[in-house]
Amino acid sequence: MRTIDWVDGAVEIIDQTVLPGELRILRLHTVDELIAAIQSLAVRGAPALGVAGAFGVALAARVHADDPEELADAVRRIENARPTAVNLARGARRAAESLPHGAQAVLAEACRVRDEEIAASEAMAALGADLMVELCGERPRLLTHCNTGGLAAVTVGTALGVVHELHKRGHLAGVVASETRPLLQGARLTSWELSQWGIEHRVAVDSAGPFLMARGEVDAVILGADRICANGDVINKIGSYAHALGARRADLPFVVVAPESTVDLDTASGDAVPIEDRGAAEITAWAPAANPAFDVTPHDLVTAIVTDRRVIRLDRGEKI
Amino acid sequence: MRTIDWVDGAVEIIDQTVLPGELRILRLHTVDELIAAIQSLAVRGAPALGVAGAFGVALAARVHADDPEELADAVRRIENARPTAVNLARGARRAAESLPHGAQAVLAEACRVRDEEIAASEAMAALGADLMVELCGERPRLLTHCNTGGLAAVTVGTALGVVHELHKRGHLAGVVASETRPLLQGARLTSWELSQWGIEHRVAVDSAGPFLMARGEVDAVILGADRICANGDVINKIGSYAHALGARRADLPFVVVAPESTVDLDTASGDAVPIEDRGAAEITAWAPAANPAFDVTPHDLVTAIVTDRRVIRLDRGEKI
Repeated sequence: MRTIDWVDGAVEIIDQTVLPGELRILRLHTVDELIAAIQSLAVRGAPALGVAGAFGVALAARVHADDPEELADAVRRIENARPTAVNLARGARRAAESLPHGAQAVLAEACRVRDEEIAASEAMAALGADLMVELCGERPRLLTHCNTGGLAAVTVGTALGVVHELHKRGHLAGVVASETRPLLQGARLTSWELSQWGIEHRVAVDSAGPFLMARGEVDAVILGADRICANGDVINKIGSYAHALGARRADLPFVVVAPESTVDLDTASGDAVPIEDRGAAEITAWAPAANPAFDVTPHDLVTAIVTDRRVIRLDRGEKI
Repeated sequence: MRTIDWVDGAVEIIDQTVLPGELRILRLHTVDELIAAIQSLAVRGAPALGVAGAFGVALAARVHADDPEELADAVRRIENARPTAVNLARGARRAAESLPHGAQAVLAEACRVRDEEIAASEAMAALGADLMVELCGERPRLLTHCNTGGLAAVTVGTALGVVHELHKRGHLAGVVASETRPLLQGARLTSWELSQWGIEHRVAVDSAGPFLMARGEVDAVILGADRICANGDVINKIGSYAHALGARRADLPFVVVAPESTVDLDTASGDAVPIEDRGAAEITAWAPAANPAFDVTPHDLVTAIVTDRRVIRLDRGEKI
């Protein structure tokens, strides 16, 4: 099953807002429908957003074929639908480069983006599983945050793809899924995917992560990234930084798994990344809120970054 | 308004499970009703639990006056209704010492426990406000976790009492209330109390705390304690430790405010404290969970402890 795909002239996604209660497929026919799905997090996760951006331009190319101004505006709106993840804009721009060759060429390029993300998932799973065994021994107990499974990519996923691979190899002794407030992607989506795969796990509130590490219940943290800066700073779901602090204090590996498409060499460090604030309504109905959707984990807290092409051991001074 | 009090032969409490939607007063006539209220967190917070323990024994002394065995059993059940906070057992034992003198003496002692907590709140507010200005300057922006207001004590509270005092003095530039999953004592109770006091604030998911500190939006962390060990380790609501790690990394003061009744010299360090696990149902309906209700903040991460009698500057090597 693919999280996002092009089916009969429309973009089909699994609606991630209603899982795990319901497995609902949405068909998106217009750019506005696609942008609404991105902004409501019906589709989310850096690799999946890259594919969504590319398919969005494919939609635009069909609908606005006769109106270059409308088309350019649609591409811009897709690129900017969410500000933090680099993949969305990158996927959109890549598909847009084919616009001079017509709608069919744009769609072909978007499908290549999709296929590359599928291949990247498999490559990361293999590289990441090798690394985790190297860092933690034969039977690691892992803590993960947010959702980095097939739902965040197209198929297997990034960090959760590594978890899946370790399970397949018989090298997994336990998983803690951090619930990931405010929208509970960990409790809803990661727990659902792990259950589908038959992987035993426990859900914990986000703030319990560092304590579970201090108490010796976790051997490593493994999670994804929405953007990786040139200096190795990692932008990821809010709460990642707190887990990194917990891992450092407990002397545990903190491993980031994300495709090369997430690496943004044009951004020097985390300070330069706009952090989306998603407003109070996601948190509480009765008070103002601070709701940064992402945080910055400074590179010195990151043990290693696993991409589909390489393992970068920041702990050994390797550079991106 | 008092969170807990003895009124016309019964214990009256504000039901903290239905705030902020509803302000409901519960009248508890039996030990079983009182224990159920403690375990459902209808009454919670270390100082309030101390008073609940004492009033519980006062209830037991009336109901089981003629049955010493039943009476001893009731006292034991009250003491053990929750395992982590030291105040509950301590309040119960203190009232129980008056059992040989009859039910009236027990009630008088329980009322003294209540009155001492009220006086302690006022003393902590004054000492704590002085300390915060000393540590942070004239207009600190504070992050607090869980609920340490009047609801956690009998009147003003512990850490939130300090916030209230700073506000009264005109020395408060902002408050972030950490929502405190799973039961949202910060988002529900602290936000409600701050609103009642007319104090502007923002609610944030727990895991955002360290990032808000890194981003320079907070000048200090101030929170309460369920138990303070002899070496200065602080047992408090899950998530406190993550905030302490964030404060240390951002070089911010981490201040604990709790009455002397919370100091437990019989417990050498945090390792020795039983941490209540409250089960999966509080977190998710569809998966197993790890749900430690408290965590341990090691003493080296604590800047200072403020009690009703003193300020202990752990950062300067002072001992409890």
